[in-house]
Amino acid sequence: MKLKPLGDRIVVEPIEREERTPGGIILPETAKEKPQEGKVLAVGPGRRDDEGNRIPMDVKEGDRVLYAKYAGTEVKLDDKKLLILRESDILALVE
Amino acid sequence: MKLKPLGDRIVVEPIEREERTPGGIILPETAKEKPQEGKVLAVGPGRRDDEGNRIPMDVKEGDRVLYAKYAGTEVKLDDKKLLILRESDILALVE
Amino acid sequence: MKLKPLGDRIVVEPIEREERTPGGIILPETAKEKPQEGKVLAVGPGRRDDEGNRIPMDVKEGDRVLYAKYAGTEVKLDDKKLLILRESDILALVE
Amino acid sequence: MKLKPLGDRIVVEPIEREERTPGGIILPETAKEKPQEGKVLAVGPGRRDDEGNRIPMDVKEGDRVLYAKYAGTEVKLDDKKLLILRESDILALVE
Amino acid sequence: MKLKPLGDRIVVEPIEREERTPGGIILPETAKEKPQEGKVLAVGPGRRDDEGNRIPMDVKEGDRVLYAKYAGTEVKLDDKKLLILRESDILALVE
Amino acid sequence: MKLKPLGDRIVVEPIEREERTPGGIILPETAKEKPQEGKVLAVGPGRRDDEGNRIPMDVKEGDRVLYAKYAGTEVKLDDKKLLILRESDILALVE
Amino acid sequence: MKLKPLGDRIVVEPIEREERTPGGIILPETAKEKPQEGKVLAVGPGRRDDEGNRIPMDVKEGDRVLYAKYAGTEVKLDDKKLLILRESDILALVE
Repeated sequence: MKLKPLGDRIVVEPIEREERTPGGIILPETAKEKPQEGKVLAVGPGRRDDEGNRIPMDVKEGDRVLYAKYAGTEVKLDDKKLLILRESDILALVE
Repeated sequence: MKLKPLGDRIVVEPIEREERTPGGIILPETAKEKPQEGKVLAVGPGRRDDEGNRIPMDVKEGDRVLYAKYAGTEVKLDDKKLLILRESDILALVE
Repeated sequence: MKLKPLGDRIVVEPIEREERTPGGIILPETAKEKPQEGKVLAVGPGRRDDEGNRIPMDVKEGDRVLYAKYAGTEVKLDDKKLLILRESDILALVE
Repeated sequence: MKLKPLGDRIVVEPIEREERTPGGIILPETAKEKPQEGKVLAVGPGRRDDEGNRIPMDVKEGDRVLYAKYAGTEVKLDDKKLLILRESDILALVE
Repeated sequence: MKLKPLGDRIVVEPIEREERTPGGIILPETAKEKPQEGKVLAVGPGRRDDEGNRIPMDVKEGDRVLYAKYAGTEVKLDDKKLLILRESDILALVE
Repeated sequence: MKLKPLGDRIVVEPIEREERTPGGIILPETAKEKPQEGKVLAVGPGRRDDEGNRIPMDVKEGDRVLYAKYAGTEVKLDDKKLLILRESDILALVE
Repeated sequence: MKLKPLGDRIVVEPIEREERTPGGIILPETAKEKPQEGKVLAVGPGRRDDEGNRIPMDVKEGDRVLYAKYAGTEVKLDDKKLLILRESDILALVE
């Protein structure tokens, strides 16, 4: 069973805190919006512009990404907790 | 009696939890928006762009889809409970 | 006396529950938005795009339609209770 | 003294209930938005599109129109109570 | 000292009630938005469209105008109370 | 140290009441939005249109301007209290 | 480990008050929105226009910038507290 996201949606598997390497991204406890780290599992074909053409995606399968923590929709697939996000919810690639 | 959705609307028959196969998508109980699974029964011709041309639909009859749980309008047709959604309410195809 | 709707507006005569045939559309009692069934009496010429050209209408006189229940403006004409809706309030044609 | 409306504005003289002929439009008492009937006294040149060209008006002087009841701005001119509306507030022509 | 409005802004000198001639525009006391009469003292060059070109103004210096009563910004210049409005706040020319 | 505003932003030095010449602009005490006078210290290159081209600015360094009183962001630079505004916050040039 | 911002996003390292040189920007205590100073560490490729082309960025790596204080998303990377902002949150370059 596989998810094929529509438009500019992306399927992301969140990376839990304990999986992070030392020196990695740790979230401070402040009032600001905090990002969450994840791995991209699937990428949609891109949203259409006003003439129906696809706008290319800047994220690809396998990318490690930071995304806004409360964005998207949760899905559980074969016991994995996944998120379906829009590309605009992705803040940065982690390299 | 048949429903022919207008614009980018889609008629979906929701798939109830007990009909899902083991290992399928099960919805976790958290505060996030949760998707719902369904089968596409009918697809509109697509919404028109600013010049009146149709933008093609990415979903077709028979597709199995995930959609935002509280989206759309409920209809009961010949005792079947159906939903009329917009294509933008569809998160992903399930394959 | 006749109503000629402007732009993408449509004059609809609602079909009351008791007029529906068995096996027809019956509205379930849930928290979701519920549609209402009606017959199209008159259709506007279509709204204009950004250059002033008409965008064609997808609904025509005589069509049976489902529309969002709380949409539009009520009019009483020669003792008939009618509704003036926009085409975007129409969810689907009933065939 | 004369009013010359700007853009897509329209000057309308409301028709009071007692002036309506039998079989005419009478407003039912429900929670829905209710229309009001009036006579068009003056019509603006039309709003400009994104390139500054006028979009033609679908209403002309002398037309009898239905408009959303709480729309527009009231003016009293030579003891006549008039309304300045936008064309988009006009629901339908009455013929 | 002179004000030169930017974009589609207009400098208007309000005409007080006592200055109005008999048979002129008098504001009724209802719940609707009420217009105010004024004289145009200065007119901006027009707002720019999406390509940076000016959209011509429909109001010129010396025009007598009706405008939405609570629109714009008050300025006192050489003891005159003036208003800076956008052209879209002007309802009609008074001729 | 110098500020170089981005896009259509403008750096303005407010002119205090006591610095104004007699007969100049004095702010009346009413409920309407009140403007504030200032001198333009720096002007951005203009915002980009939908194709990435700059839209020229209508304000230049040295202009005396009226702006909406509560607009913009305060900065203190070398003990001067400055404001960073968008061009759309500027109501008029004072000549 | 490096962050590569997407679209028109920018990674900024905030400059704390005590690091500022005398005569530099000090934030006054008023009710207005206050800016914050920072150094640009990484710049996205720019957002796409309606046809999918990149709009060039006006900020580059190494720039010193003023930004709206409560904008963006906080990230901690290798013990540095960073911010991911959109270019539109940047008010001015500091030179």
